[in-house]
Order: sequence, then structure tokens, then C-alpha cells
Amino acid sequence: MSHADREKEKMLARVRRIRGQVEAIERAFEAEAESEKIMHLIAGVRGSVSGLMGEVVEHHIRYHLVDGEKFPGALDADAQEALVEIIHTYVKK
Amino acid sequence: MSHADREKEKMLARVRRIRGQVEAIERAFEAEAESEKIMHLIAGVRGSVSGLMGEVVEHHIRYHLVDGEKFPGALDADAQEALVEIIHTYVKK
Amino acid sequence: MSHADREKEKMLARVRRIRGQVEAIERAFEAEAESEKIMHLIAGVRGSVSGLMGEVVEHHIRYHLVDGEKFPGALDADAQEALVEIIHTYVKK
Amino acid sequence: MSHADREKEKMLARVRRIRGQVEAIERAFEAEAESEKIMHLIAGVRGSVSGLMGEVVEHHIRYHLVDGEKFPGALDADAQEALVEIIHTYVKK
Repeated sequence: MSHADREKEKMLARVRRIRGQVEAIERAFEAEAESEKIMHLIAGVRGSVSGLMGEVVEHHIRYHLVDGEKFPGALDADAQEALVEIIHTYVKK
Repeated sequence: MSHADREKEKMLARVRRIRGQVEAIERAFEAEAESEKIMHLIAGVRGSVSGLMGEVVEHHIRYHLVDGEKFPGALDADAQEALVEIIHTYVKK
Repeated sequence: MSHADREKEKMLARVRRIRGQVEAIERAFEAEAESEKIMHLIAGVRGSVSGLMGEVVEHHIRYHLVDGEKFPGALDADAQEALVEIIHTYVKK
Repeated sequence: MSHADREKEKMLARVRRIRGQVEAIERAFEAEAESEKIMHLIAGVRGSVSGLMGEVVEHHIRYHLVDGEKFPGALDADAQEALVEIIHTYVKK
């Protein structure tokens, strides 16, 4: 299994987990669960969606902004790390 | 259909829409779509989840903090509106 | 010193700390500091502002929604705690 | 006045405006203003801090990730725009 295939499987596992969390919210509404429980479930989905976004944005910054084969060394390593860190501060919340 | 039933249907429609959006992300990963597209889809889910949370928290503030039948007039109307407004500033984002 | 006075002093100390953090950003721009450093300083202010908002919103929920002397027991304790917890999830970020 | 000097002045004006907003919160606490008013003032600072961060992060992405003189054309324009757009979705809130 290639690196790209493993990445894809990891992302798909995350998305499927989110789908499961959304289905749990659906069941909670159907069962007329207390709003405390429903708010808790929604907060969980929100966290997972933010985690997924953080992963995708980080991947985008590392691999899609600059074609590393055509422009080796063009992406400034320090500037990239600082950006990734700031992104996570915002997105993973 | 009672008010509570209509509320429940409205919430369920929102959750089902979110499930559909999550399934679209799953298909995008499977089809190896560009990260631009995937980030856009995730941002859409995030917005819908926040909108749902905003609705649930607002409902919680209006109807669950104080039992209006047992304590009529106990919930300060201005303080409640200010809180709902601040919540939406944070949650609906 | 009354409880209210201590609360006020605590809040003022938080606000003055934020003012100091904002002045540090001003000096960093004047000194043409690196954007990595500036982003870090701004993230710090953002965290402090969110912390302050969390405190103020929690206080608002606990003491301003219901006049506890006129309506003792009207504010549902569990519903209040669940709301405070959700608020912190959103605001303190 | 060079482009860099104008940028610097613009940023400093933003930071000074934030300092003024923080001082207004300080005065509101000193005057024991209502929590509705204080929450509103804090939300205003938060918006301004986020706007400043959005500007700084966008500048960082456009000018600091890749040295455009040494590596002309290395930064993929579409990938950069998609990233800036996503950042603003998160930061400007």
C-alpha cells in the first residue's frame, strides 16, 4: 500500500467516523433526548470536523502550495511550520 | 402536528442534510478530488453543524433554563436576548 | 473587600493584561518583527480575549438571567451547568 | 512612502484601534457597566483581533512562504487562493 493510499484510507476512516457521529445525533433527536445530550453530541461532531479540516489544510500547505519536484527548496521551512501551527490554533477548535 | 413535532422535524431535516454533506466528503475522498474542493466541502459541513448547534443552544436557553410554567417571568428577557445574541456570534461560525 | 469588588479587580487585571499584550503587538510592528512572531503575539491576545469573554458570559448566565432573590430555585442547575460547559467549548478558543 | 511603509502604517492603525477598544472595556468595568454592554465590547475586540490576524496570515502566505525573487512561479496561484479563502473563513470570526 502506497503512502498516498494509506493517507486516503486514514481520511476515509475519519469521515466515516463523522458520519457515525451524525447518525447518533439523528437518533438522539428521534428519541427526543435531552438537549444537554444533544449539545454534547454536536460538540463532538464539531471537534471531529475541525480535526479533519486541520489535517486537510496541513496537507494542502505541505504538498500543494509548491511542486517540490519542480521547485526543490522553494517552500521556506520555518514559515511553513509557523503557518501550520497557527492554522491548528484556529481550525482544531 | 404540534409545535414540538414541527421543531423535531425541522431539526431532523437539518441533521439529515448534514449527513448528506458528510457523504459528499466521503465520495470526494474516494474520487481523490482536489484538496481545494475537499476543504470547501468540509467548510460547508462545519457551517451546518454550527447552525444546528446555534439552534439547539438557543432553544436550550429559551425553554430549558427555567420552567416557565412554574416560574413565570423569572427569566429576564433582556439578559436572555443578550446571551442568545452573543452565543450566535460564537457558535454560528 | 466585598465579593463584587474582588470580581471587579480580577476582571480589571485581565483587561490590563490584554492591553499590555496589545501594546507588545504594537511594538513588534514598529520594530518590523517577523510575521511568525507577530502571529504568535496576536494568537496570545486572542486567547486572553476569549478567556475574558468566557468569564463574563459565565457570570452573566449564573447571576443575570434570573434574579435569585426574587425567584429562588427558578434557574435549573443541570441546564445551567450544561450551558456553561458548551459556552466554554466555543468561547475559550 | 514605500509599499512596505504603508503596510506598516495600516497595521499600526489597526493595532492602535484595538488598544482603544480594550481601554473602553477597562472603563466599562470600572464604571460597573451592565454585562450586556461588556459582552458587546469584548465581541468587538475579538472581531478586530481576528481581522488583524487574517491580514497578517494572508500576508505571510503571499510573501513569506516562498521567496518570489529566488523562486518565481513556485507558489501555485490556485492553491494559494484556496488557502487564503479557507483561512479567512476560520480566522475572521
